[in-house]
Amino acid sequence: MNIPYPVKIRAVWWDESSRRTCWINTLKLPHSEEVECSNDPARVAKAIIDLEIRGAPAIGVAAALAVASYAWTLTGRPREEFYSKALEAVSTLWSTRPTAHNLFHALSRVREKLLASMNAGATPLEAAEAVTAEALRIMEEDIFSNYLIGEHGSQLVPDNASILTHCNAGALATSALGTAEAVMRIAWYKGKKIRVYATETRPVLQGARLTVWELMKEGIPVTLITDNTAGFLIRKGMIDLVIVGADRITREGYVVNKIGTYMIALAAKRNNIPFYVAAPTSTIDLNSRIEDVVIEERNPAEVKYVMGKLITLEEAPALNYAFDITDPDLVTAIITEKGIVKPPYPENLKKIVESKPR
Amino acid sequence: MNIPYPVKIRAVWWDESSRRTCWINTLKLPHSEEVECSNDPARVAKAIIDLEIRGAPAIGVAAALAVASYAWTLTGRPREEFYSKALEAVSTLWSTRPTAHNLFHALSRVREKLLASMNAGATPLEAAEAVTAEALRIMEEDIFSNYLIGEHGSQLVPDNASILTHCNAGALATSALGTAEAVMRIAWYKGKKIRVYATETRPVLQGARLTVWELMKEGIPVTLITDNTAGFLIRKGMIDLVIVGADRITREGYVVNKIGTYMIALAAKRNNIPFYVAAPTSTIDLNSRIEDVVIEERNPAEVKYVMGKLITLEEAPALNYAFDITDPDLVTAIITEKGIVKPPYPENLKKIVESKPR
Repeated sequence: MNIPYPVKIRAVWWDESSRRTCWINTLKLPHSEEVECSNDPARVAKAIIDLEIRGAPAIGVAAALAVASYAWTLTGRPREEFYSKALEAVSTLWSTRPTAHNLFHALSRVREKLLASMNAGATPLEAAEAVTAEALRIMEEDIFSNYLIGEHGSQLVPDNASILTHCNAGALATSALGTAEAVMRIAWYKGKKIRVYATETRPVLQGARLTVWELMKEGIPVTLITDNTAGFLIRKGMIDLVIVGADRITREGYVVNKIGTYMIALAAKRNNIPFYVAAPTSTIDLNSRIEDVVIEERNPAEVKYVMGKLITLEEAPALNYAFDITDPDLVTAIITEKGIVKPPYPENLKKIVESKPR
Repeated sequence: MNIPYPVKIRAVWWDESSRRTCWINTLKLPHSEEVECSNDPARVAKAIIDLEIRGAPAIGVAAALAVASYAWTLTGRPREEFYSKALEAVSTLWSTRPTAHNLFHALSRVREKLLASMNAGATPLEAAEAVTAEALRIMEEDIFSNYLIGEHGSQLVPDNASILTHCNAGALATSALGTAEAVMRIAWYKGKKIRVYATETRPVLQGARLTVWELMKEGIPVTLITDNTAGFLIRKGMIDLVIVGADRITREGYVVNKIGTYMIALAAKRNNIPFYVAAPTSTIDLNSRIEDVVIEERNPAEVKYVMGKLITLEEAPALNYAFDITDPDLVTAIITEKGIVKPPYPENLKKIVESKPR
C-alpha cells in the first residue's frame, strides 16, 4: 500500500489466492480476534446486518469485494445468468443497512462496472475481472483516503490535545487507518502528544470494544468514559476538540452518525471547542435531503441486553435508533481526503465532491 | 401516610418492632427484590456507598434512620459514650457520598437533635426517642414532599405528553412516590395519558433497572432508550418535556444531577422544550458555590463492567464521574414541595427555601 505509515489492523481485505472477501468479526473484539472469509454474498450481507463488519467505509468496501468474490464463483455460468446473479447480489448487499452512504456509493460503482461489461458483451470471466478491479480500486482508494484524511486532519490537532471521539471511526471501520482515528494516528506518528477520551457507545459498545482496543494497540493514551460523561468533560474544559466519523453527510452539511453524536456536538458548540467530522467524500450524499435519509431502527434487544445480560425487564419496550442527525451549524469542519471543508456547506461540499483528487 | 395516593413501593423505611432501618437493595432490581434491615451505621453506610440505597432523598432519609436505629442499641451505655458514639455514626454516614445535598441536610438535623438533647441533659433513652422522632419526621416530610412535588408538577404536564426522564428519580430514590416520577405518577393518577421515555443511565443503569420497573408496575407506558438516544428523540419532536431529579441545586440554580443530564438539557434548550427539575427544598444548598461542590468520582470498574461482564480491555483506563452540572439558563423551572420556582434562581430559590411550608 502506497502510504508512508504502518497499517497494523485490517477490518476487510481481499484474499487473492481464494478470491474471497475476508474480515475481522468485530463483534468478538476485544476479547477475541476472529477472521471470516466468504464468497457468498448472503454471508457477507449477514455479516453487515449483524455488525460483524461495521463502519460506513468498511461496509462499502466489504460489499464491493463480496460482489467480486461471488462473480468468480459464477464464471462457468451462461452470460445471462452470470449478470443476473451478480446484479442480484448487488441488490442483496444494497438492502443490508439503510443509512450509511458509502455502501450505496461502492455498490453503484460495482453495478456500473457490471452493466458496462454486459453492454460491451464481456464474458463472465472478463466481467469478473473488471468487477474485481473496481472493488479493489474502491478498497485502495479508501486506504489512500484514510491516509489523506489523517494528513489533513492532523494539522487541526494541537500538540498535547485532549480529543474526544464517539463510536469507532478507526481501522475497524475502514480499510486501513480509519477516518477520525486516522487523524489521531497521524498526529501521533508526527509526534504530537495527544490523549483520547473514547465514549463506550451504547448499545453495541464500539467505543469500549473497538476504539479502546485500537488505540491501546497504537500506544496512544486512551480513557474510556460512558456516553453520559462526554458533555461534562467538555464543560469542565478537559477536551480540546471532538473528532467523529460519519455515515452520511448531506449536501446541506447535516451529519448522520452514530446515535449520541448530536448531544456531543451540542456540548462542543456550547463550550466553544471545535467539532470535526472526518469522512471520505464517498460519505457525502449530494442527492438526498436530510428529511429523506432513513435512520435505521435496529432490534430493541441490542438495548435490553449487554453482552448477553438482560439489563431491564424482559417485557420492557425499547427503541433502538442506530444514528442521529447533527445540524450543520454545529459542525466546525469536515475533514475529507480532498481537504478540509468549512461552511457554507451547501456550496463547499458540492465543490469538494466534484473536484479532482489532488 | 397522609397522602391521597397509594404508595406501592418503599425504598427505605423504619421497622418499628425491631427499630431497624430497612431498605430494598436496588442493586438487585429488577431481577430480584431483596430487603435488608440493620441498626449498624457501618452497614447502612456501606449500603449507601455501594448504591444499594441511592437517590438523594432516599440516602438522606436512610442516614437519619440509621442514626436513630443505632441510638437504640446504645441506650444502656453511659451518657457520654452514648453521645460520642451516636455523633460518630453521624460522621460515618456523612462521609459516604460527597455530592447529594439531602444527605447533609438530614444528618445536620439529626446531629442538631443529638446536640440539643445532650445540652439539655437528656438520658440516652430520651435522646434515642428524640432522634428517632426527628428521623421519622424527615421521612414523613419526604413522603409529603413527594406528594406535593407531584401535585405541583402535574400541572405542568399536558395530556398525552411524551416525557423524557434520566436515571431514577422515583419511589426508589425517595421515601414514597419519587420526585420526577411523582410528577408522572400524579399526572397519570389524574387521568393524563402520558408516555415516558427512560434512558438506561450508564454506568449503573438506574433507568433500565429501576425506572422501567417502577413505571411498568404503575402501568404507565414506558420505553427504554440508550442514553445516546435522548437528543435524537428530542430533535425529532418526539418529546414534549424533560423531567429529572437533582442531587444538589446551588443558590444560583446550577443543578447537579446524574451524569448525562447536562447534554439532555442542552438538547431540550436547542429544541425549545421545557426542562424541569423536580426536587424537595432539602436538595437546595444555599451555601455552596458551584465551584465548591465535589463531583463524586467512582470506581472505574462501574464503567468497564456491565452486570459483571467486562466490556473493554481489562487494562483500559476509565473515568467515572457520577454527576454533571446543568447551568441555570438550561433549566425551565424547579418543582419543589413548596411550589414551582422559575428564574431568576438566585432570588427565587432563596425565597422558597426560607418560606414557610404551605
